[in-house]
Amino acid sequence: MFTELKREAYEANLEIPKQGLAIYTFGNVSAFDAARGVFAIKPSGVPYDELTPDLMVVVDLDGDIVEGSGRPSSDTKTHAVLYREFAGIRGVCHSHSMYAVAWAQACREIPVFGTTHADHLTEPIPVTEPMSDDAIERDYEVETGHQIVQRLRGLDPHEVEMIIVACHGPFTWGTSAQKAVYNSRVLEEIAQMAYLTRTINPIAPPIKETLIRKHYLRKHGAGAYYGQVETPDVIDGLK
Amino acid sequence: MFTELKREAYEANLEIPKQGLAIYTFGNVSAFDAARGVFAIKPSGVPYDELTPDLMVVVDLDGDIVEGSGRPSSDTKTHAVLYREFAGIRGVCHSHSMYAVAWAQACREIPVFGTTHADHLTEPIPVTEPMSDDAIERDYEVETGHQIVQRLRGLDPHEVEMIIVACHGPFTWGTSAQKAVYNSRVLEEIAQMAYLTRTINPIAPPIKETLIRKHYLRKHGAGAYYGQVETPDVIDGLK
Amino acid sequence: MFTELKREAYEANLEIPKQGLAIYTFGNVSAFDAARGVFAIKPSGVPYDELTPDLMVVVDLDGDIVEGSGRPSSDTKTHAVLYREFAGIRGVCHSHSMYAVAWAQACREIPVFGTTHADHLTEPIPVTEPMSDDAIERDYEVETGHQIVQRLRGLDPHEVEMIIVACHGPFTWGTSAQKAVYNSRVLEEIAQMAYLTRTINPIAPPIKETLIRKHYLRKHGAGAYYGQVETPDVIDGLK
Amino acid sequence: MFTELKREAYEANLEIPKQGLAIYTFGNVSAFDAARGVFAIKPSGVPYDELTPDLMVVVDLDGDIVEGSGRPSSDTKTHAVLYREFAGIRGVCHSHSMYAVAWAQACREIPVFGTTHADHLTEPIPVTEPMSDDAIERDYEVETGHQIVQRLRGLDPHEVEMIIVACHGPFTWGTSAQKAVYNSRVLEEIAQMAYLTRTINPIAPPIKETLIRKHYLRKHGAGAYYGQVETPDVIDGLK
Repeated sequence: MFTELKREAYEANLEIPKQGLAIYTFGNVSAFDAARGVFAIKPSGVPYDELTPDLMVVVDLDGDIVEGSGRPSSDTKTHAVLYREFAGIRGVCHSHSMYAVAWAQACREIPVFGTTHADHLTEPIPVTEPMSDDAIERDYEVETGHQIVQRLRGLDPHEVEMIIVACHGPFTWGTSAQKAVYNSRVLEEIAQMAYLTRTINPIAPPIKETLIRKHYLRKHGAGAYYGQVETPDVIDGLK
Repeated sequence: MFTELKREAYEANLEIPKQGLAIYTFGNVSAFDAARGVFAIKPSGVPYDELTPDLMVVVDLDGDIVEGSGRPSSDTKTHAVLYREFAGIRGVCHSHSMYAVAWAQACREIPVFGTTHADHLTEPIPVTEPMSDDAIERDYEVETGHQIVQRLRGLDPHEVEMIIVACHGPFTWGTSAQKAVYNSRVLEEIAQMAYLTRTINPIAPPIKETLIRKHYLRKHGAGAYYGQVETPDVIDGLK
Repeated sequence: MFTELKREAYEANLEIPKQGLAIYTFGNVSAFDAARGVFAIKPSGVPYDELTPDLMVVVDLDGDIVEGSGRPSSDTKTHAVLYREFAGIRGVCHSHSMYAVAWAQACREIPVFGTTHADHLTEPIPVTEPMSDDAIERDYEVETGHQIVQRLRGLDPHEVEMIIVACHGPFTWGTSAQKAVYNSRVLEEIAQMAYLTRTINPIAPPIKETLIRKHYLRKHGAGAYYGQVETPDVIDGLK
Repeated sequence: MFTELKREAYEANLEIPKQGLAIYTFGNVSAFDAARGVFAIKPSGVPYDELTPDLMVVVDLDGDIVEGSGRPSSDTKTHAVLYREFAGIRGVCHSHSMYAVAWAQACREIPVFGTTHADHLTEPIPVTEPMSDDAIERDYEVETGHQIVQRLRGLDPHEVEMIIVACHGPFTWGTSAQKAVYNSRVLEEIAQMAYLTRTINPIAPPIKETLIRKHYLRKHGAGAYYGQVETPDVIDGLK
């Protein structure tokens, strides 16, 4: 019944090891079908090279299983919160990629140090507040989603498609599952660039606002001129 | 006679180069048969791509050869001490993986900086005391085992399945040889994450106890909900 | 009509991912035909593994399309400025390679710390001035070219074939498109070596002038004795 | 006439890219035939994937060509000095590997921070004095050899088989060409471990003398017990 959705989730999950975003099973992607209010997600604890489209688990926005015989990812409820709250997104990705985790563990947001960052978003990569003991003990994965939504307040989730959960790691999203993984890979690249920048020059300043806007608008919005004409919104080959 | 045991050791040793844990022959894994009181271990100084199951050396808990024509790993007696002292473990892995060695050489334990660490253990990765001159000159590999056991005192070797031997490198263990290698790979990942965290924020604090317990218990114990139902103890695809 | 030129550009662009200089589509190379005053360049936003020679876009030195159905790289006008201003160059390469970007984001030139650097140029790798708001808002890619040309004033673009654009990343050039990519790979190597040197010894001095000249002249000019006799200008196997 | 010697040099040169010790043509190995007083070395500026055994250049200890139509490596005279001065060595390797170069550029010797180092030598990795202007302008490659020999004075070149040439990079040697490359790979590993150790703990001390001797003697000398019985001197699978 959800053949196409499960295939999309399956293929996006395969990108995680291909892009070097996780060892073993330390990451998961989901693909959302907004019309039916369900998403397909990686089964928990299954290595990427054992995945098949049929092993994907389809759940609704309460996290209840709609189709599939396995357990969904333990992070499923966080994905559900993001689909509920960020209208228009169709994919979510979570991993423990090295440099994004390092900034998460350092509890520091990533300043806009250069144009690679500004090509993708105009804001520092936000970091959530550390979670309260109460929230941790209540419904941890739901609360992780709330922390993300809370931190995004005042920002547009279609502009800022990535966040670092303090002490944990990155969550990214986008208009497709593939785009969500793409954003995780970009975040990892930006995180490593920022790490190196800081260690060369501990007082390196962020770049100026005009340069940020210029680079962002080369790739986004009505005046964008990056990519091909027939696919004006294309970012880096992802349709 | 020990066909199965030697195959298990052989396959686990192949994981060392595959996971990038050692160059040349700088690592070894063993698989333990508790009923017979013997373990199969890598022959000393033989490159991974020349290994065959038949080259594995089977030794008893005194380190005496039971089957095999080659010399066992020079670290064999350390493995033997761990099998004697840590009831229930079935595999031991030793390597000189890059970041674990860096912490070993810095003689520093690895704080619990994030959930990747807490997913696997609730304690800092312990580091042994430096060995006394006497112990070094006595029976070095046995004494290395004693240093590990000594440092584990008060900890549960089924919770803390990894340690850093000061000035040397990592030893890990687990309920199978594959699990022992898995723990070495995880330790390397945690060690690199901690390295980067420290260099971004030299005063980064460890994460709070509630978060540590939450993540550990997602994967371990009666209430665990990570992995698949039929294999409740599965961690990351390792049965 | 431009079959050969497009093939040269195509093959040089494939070197970008092969040499690890960019993820996704974060880099582009062009090949210049001086006689006809045109160059072939990567189409914008197309992944390297989807490129074919026919997808290369041929443009003149105003950046106007001469042949090709797609949009050329968004950095095309920067390439055009360099071909106009640096007589004799035949290739330009731009990427967001990791360590070169780190120095760009730190707004620091790369000192001549060793002979690997001196084998290729006798000067620190220059970094441009940050661009003014006016220039950013005028004709950004043309102005990027101007910043580069401005910074090269007083230097020979056939000796200094690489630069770091502040807050952005590397541009390199050379007597062919392949040589331009080669220079990007060398710059990345030098940038990483300098990064590590600085973090081991924050006050490491540049090497002495005699050693710089010696190494440069082993590979360049009438007395060069690196490479094979029949190809006296050969550098590292690139004809 | 030198078929076997050229094949040995050829195969050892192929190890350079395989072990990640150099990009493009930034490294060379030679194999020495002591009886005939000649060695085979990589031709200058030829990429590794274009090498064949027949392209190897055979030279005598003055660096004069005995067999081969190409130019030998520009570092040939340095190799010649080492074969003259270090009786018993049969291979020399030079590369610009990343971390060894970083220490070279920082002009710092590498302390014995751990057992990986002590498994191979009991001394810090020595670094040469910077070369005088006179020496640079005289006969640079010969003088590089002299700097190495000078720094090794008082040390045994069969114990210390590796050195860092200040501002330049590593030279290593051994009882065969393969062993020389092996030593380059080990040096690179030790150099990276030491880099990380220093940045975790800037005042990390070297390990104690008893531990150094213990590890060195596990692998070297009459009482060695690493490796297989039939090849008591085997180090890491290299016969």
